[in-house]
Amino acid sequence: MYKLLDKIESPNDLKKLDICELPELCREIRKFLIDSVSKTGGHLASNLGVVELTVALHTVFNVPEDKIVFDVGHQAYVHKILTGRRSQFDTLRKFNGMSGFPKRSESPADSFNTGHSSTSISAALGMARGRDLAGEKYNVIAVFGDGALTGGMMYEAMNDAGHSKTPLILILNDNAMSISKNVGAIASHLRNLRTSPFYFKSKHIIERFLNKLPFAGNAIANSIRTIKRGIRRMVIPTTLFDDLGFAYIGPVDGHDINSLISVLEYAKSENKPVLIHIQTKKGRGYAPAESNPQKFHGISAFDASTGEAKKSGETYSSRFGTTLIEIAKKNDKVVAITGAMPNGTGLSEFPKLFKKRFFDVGIAEQHGVTLAAGLASAGYVPVIPLYSSFLQRAYDQTLHDVCLQNLHVVFPIDRAGIVGADGETHQGIYDISYLSHMPNMSILSPSTFLELDQMLCYAVNEHNGPIAIRYPRGSTQAKTLGTAFKFGQAVTISSGRNLAIIATGRMVKRAQEVADALNQHHISCEILTLPTIKPLDEAAVIAAAMKTKNVITIEDNVKIGGIGSIIATLLSEKNIDAKMKIYAFPDTPITHGTIDELDRLYGLDTQSIVNDMLNQQTDERR
Amino acid sequence: MYKLLDKIESPNDLKKLDICELPELCREIRKFLIDSVSKTGGHLASNLGVVELTVALHTVFNVPEDKIVFDVGHQAYVHKILTGRRSQFDTLRKFNGMSGFPKRSESPADSFNTGHSSTSISAALGMARGRDLAGEKYNVIAVFGDGALTGGMMYEAMNDAGHSKTPLILILNDNAMSISKNVGAIASHLRNLRTSPFYFKSKHIIERFLNKLPFAGNAIANSIRTIKRGIRRMVIPTTLFDDLGFAYIGPVDGHDINSLISVLEYAKSENKPVLIHIQTKKGRGYAPAESNPQKFHGISAFDASTGEAKKSGETYSSRFGTTLIEIAKKNDKVVAITGAMPNGTGLSEFPKLFKKRFFDVGIAEQHGVTLAAGLASAGYVPVIPLYSSFLQRAYDQTLHDVCLQNLHVVFPIDRAGIVGADGETHQGIYDISYLSHMPNMSILSPSTFLELDQMLCYAVNEHNGPIAIRYPRGSTQAKTLGTAFKFGQAVTISSGRNLAIIATGRMVKRAQEVADALNQHHISCEILTLPTIKPLDEAAVIAAAMKTKNVITIEDNVKIGGIGSIIATLLSEKNIDAKMKIYAFPDTPITHGTIDELDRLYGLDTQSIVNDMLNQQTDERR
Repeated sequence: MYKLLDKIESPNDLKKLDICELPELCREIRKFLIDSVSKTGGHLASNLGVVELTVALHTVFNVPEDKIVFDVGHQAYVHKILTGRRSQFDTLRKFNGMSGFPKRSESPADSFNTGHSSTSISAALGMARGRDLAGEKYNVIAVFGDGALTGGMMYEAMNDAGHSKTPLILILNDNAMSISKNVGAIASHLRNLRTSPFYFKSKHIIERFLNKLPFAGNAIANSIRTIKRGIRRMVIPTTLFDDLGFAYIGPVDGHDINSLISVLEYAKSENKPVLIHIQTKKGRGYAPAESNPQKFHGISAFDASTGEAKKSGETYSSRFGTTLIEIAKKNDKVVAITGAMPNGTGLSEFPKLFKKRFFDVGIAEQHGVTLAAGLASAGYVPVIPLYSSFLQRAYDQTLHDVCLQNLHVVFPIDRAGIVGADGETHQGIYDISYLSHMPNMSILSPSTFLELDQMLCYAVNEHNGPIAIRYPRGSTQAKTLGTAFKFGQAVTISSGRNLAIIATGRMVKRAQEVADALNQHHISCEILTLPTIKPLDEAAVIAAAMKTKNVITIEDNVKIGGIGSIIATLLSEKNIDAKMKIYAFPDTPITHGTIDELDRLYGLDTQSIVNDMLNQQTDERR
Repeated sequence: MYKLLDKIESPNDLKKLDICELPELCREIRKFLIDSVSKTGGHLASNLGVVELTVALHTVFNVPEDKIVFDVGHQAYVHKILTGRRSQFDTLRKFNGMSGFPKRSESPADSFNTGHSSTSISAALGMARGRDLAGEKYNVIAVFGDGALTGGMMYEAMNDAGHSKTPLILILNDNAMSISKNVGAIASHLRNLRTSPFYFKSKHIIERFLNKLPFAGNAIANSIRTIKRGIRRMVIPTTLFDDLGFAYIGPVDGHDINSLISVLEYAKSENKPVLIHIQTKKGRGYAPAESNPQKFHGISAFDASTGEAKKSGETYSSRFGTTLIEIAKKNDKVVAITGAMPNGTGLSEFPKLFKKRFFDVGIAEQHGVTLAAGLASAGYVPVIPLYSSFLQRAYDQTLHDVCLQNLHVVFPIDRAGIVGADGETHQGIYDISYLSHMPNMSILSPSTFLELDQMLCYAVNEHNGPIAIRYPRGSTQAKTLGTAFKFGQAVTISSGRNLAIIATGRMVKRAQEVADALNQHHISCEILTLPTIKPLDEAAVIAAAMKTKNVITIEDNVKIGGIGSIIATLLSEKNIDAKMKIYAFPDTPITHGTIDELDRLYGLDTQSIVNDMLNQQTDERR
């Protein structure tokens, strides 16, 4: 079906092609990507942008001896195609199928797992240092976007790498985008570089020019000599990357395969830290993605001919965004901060209405959180929605800058709990465990959109101090609760005698389903929901436990440090005589799959919990 | 006693002095600092370095209307002297006394609490944005060292600030040191700048020179014109800070009070992001500190005339360093990484023996941990000792880059538990809670030096996967245990019938003391130690609980997510009928004071626990 691509089972096959066949191969790869991702969903636009780069990399380098780190890893599809995994693309991001990110367990061609941004230079430097210590000779290459470059780790790593002179090839894939349009001073700096002539050339011209300047015999000779030295010193290191100790090469057209191969060969021959700046177009070669790369960043299945995807309905993210706007209309102290994800977090409309009260900090969660602390100290109420897995990056800032100072910052935690297809690096199942021990932190979790509205109003307008609201990916809602949110209060949404089911967030619906099923088996269930996870409504939990003598907790979080363990600790310390069982995720990496599949895998679906409870009852009767 | 300083109760008094009196005032401040800190201990060298700067800041700006953020806050002593707190210096860093860091709760002059490095630009930008939104006019100044500049957050913040044009004054206090000598490409860049002429001047000379160049009438006129444009564009933004959108001014002699005042007045008049690069000498004006600034970074009381401090004996930190060298002699795969703290973590001798196997990454814990992951993926065994409170900065990297990939990285966690005088930002009481839910992570904690040796050998030579060893500040050891460390095994170090005391690390000694006291009251105590915190030796814990029906846990960690809660959860889920009481720190900010004072404050000293247990017994008898 594909004239060239069908011959490529490994990078060695690629190397057998004639170099003038490569543009055609790139066309075939694009066609394959569009066909395939339109059926499975996945990250499309970024992969369309790196087709030529990835082909050039595998033409010049030898994987797995040479190591390539993709940052972030969702741009590794072409790499997967070229390293023998094309036939697995129909299982992309599916349960038991191929991951959407590089995985060392999946192929020796994947040198490092990369799900979160801005890790590549650190990891690559580690590999390069290991190589040098072992006296080996392979190449280590980090490929990262200009979005990743907004993350502070990259500077920490360049500061270390540029200084140490460890040979290392960095490839800055500059498409002027993170997931959204890229922001910040570095983006401007790159914009300037982009419009510069190819940098090597201009350096040579200046050198020649300086050498031609008059040199002696007149009155200003001396000062000119000084100035020449000054210019030379000041001109030569002119990019940010030179300042950080890297030899800068660029800008290079990232869709010109021959230029790419030449530059990579050159970089390989240099024995020092090199940064190659290539320019690409996100979505390249597919009109719908070129014109709307945000939409085609990470998408569901779509119609390849039109680019139309199934419209998704209201989600917790979109509901958050809508409600925040209503709140911000009435409270002019509200400001919103995003870490390069206005769309993903439901914030895309906010800056249209409140331009001055909106700050996109780039992929820079650490700075974002401490910026929020600064704004709070100046009397504003910052709202900083982040995905649960990305707030991890700002653990210290949340604890040190916000919580210890008890500043009023609102943390809407999106994608809390299992997220599905993105897999282990993106599962948001740690936040209850990493937030609940922080001083002054309050944690809420809605089980309906309405509850989210009420919580957000409370958190912004009434609360004082740090407060998190964790809500799941998607739109899972409990059956109507009929009660209004009150901070710190647990709610008995149904009364029962034999078993207390305590749940929060997405798992309130699960509690309702379990209760319905068990009631049919004549187990009378009480359901206690925890809209407020911290501070825990201890009295309500104790009352339910004493009444039923039998407690289960269901949560969308890892077991260690989660709600179940907090409740078990309470009951244990208060010497309450009640049986206790915790339904939560284990502390093992949680693979990709749908949320339902993963719930089932770990026994957190309704049927598994019901069976478990019924078996237990049977055991007890025996 | 002080001719000028005695007149200064507030910055307003300072402004009344004649400008030519300021050098004498600086001398008096230095004398006061040396006298005072020699009695109390504290951070001396950095404060001696910023005397002129702080006097200049309070001459030019008006605190508290203007906001100054000190990064890190231990260089705020002079600021405290000038803002009415000189009389409190005899209580510096003491329980109920003045903090060694800025504290908003202590004075309105302290605009932001700063204990961890590299937070200042983010916080200051937040304040500046709040100011602009409110239409107010005050100045916001961030003062940070070149050490802080090795932290990635600073770039995230400059990227945002430089782009947004928010007026903000950054002062880079460049003493070429973090706590140790500063490292990395940025340090080199600063070294280059330091040897440059004052930057404004050179820019003007180049402009004049370019304007004088021949302009037309000869063959190369056109190309010269192009080149002139090129040079102008390339020369003008020549520092890293220009690239990031800041107007760079410097270098300025940071001990010349008149230059400082002029430059600050100029920066104040500019309405944009400005970075002033000043050069200072750490320890300035005190010979022992100038010649050994590391020693005088943070010190105990010392003899002011000679600079001699009381020799401290062996600590967990020094023992770690000694043992690691022995291990590294035999295992050439061992590499060590430090985040700018080779001395504090006991690593100072390591690079003398293994230069190539030692990496100082700067104050860059995030990069350090992912660098370790990269080295581990290349077959090395990285050992990265960090203070518990600073590993917080790398929470995500530990989880995402090390744990999810199950890489063999050894995390010696120094200063785990209460650290004392540094106070709330440095208390290492969160690590069990933030590490125990990470997939594949193992956690050890020694209660003697010997156990540390054994654990380190095991962790490096036998374990596979991420492993942390947490040990306290100082040298508290349990009475001889008489047993060798075995991974995963709890140890019954004394047998008893009425009460099981479960403890780990520093608190094993406490358990022994409590047991001795209670045994005298005829309460027979079993002591179970947990050298391995994770994976928990569930069988041993259950056996002790079933035997005694009465369990207490004692730990040097916050209660939520700590050992007590993990054990309570276990007993609860296993339906073990045992009373349970957890002795741990609460999730509130823990102030400064000695470790003993803080243990007492929170009821974790031997007497409090013994009394508590005896009262409980009495209650039960009633």
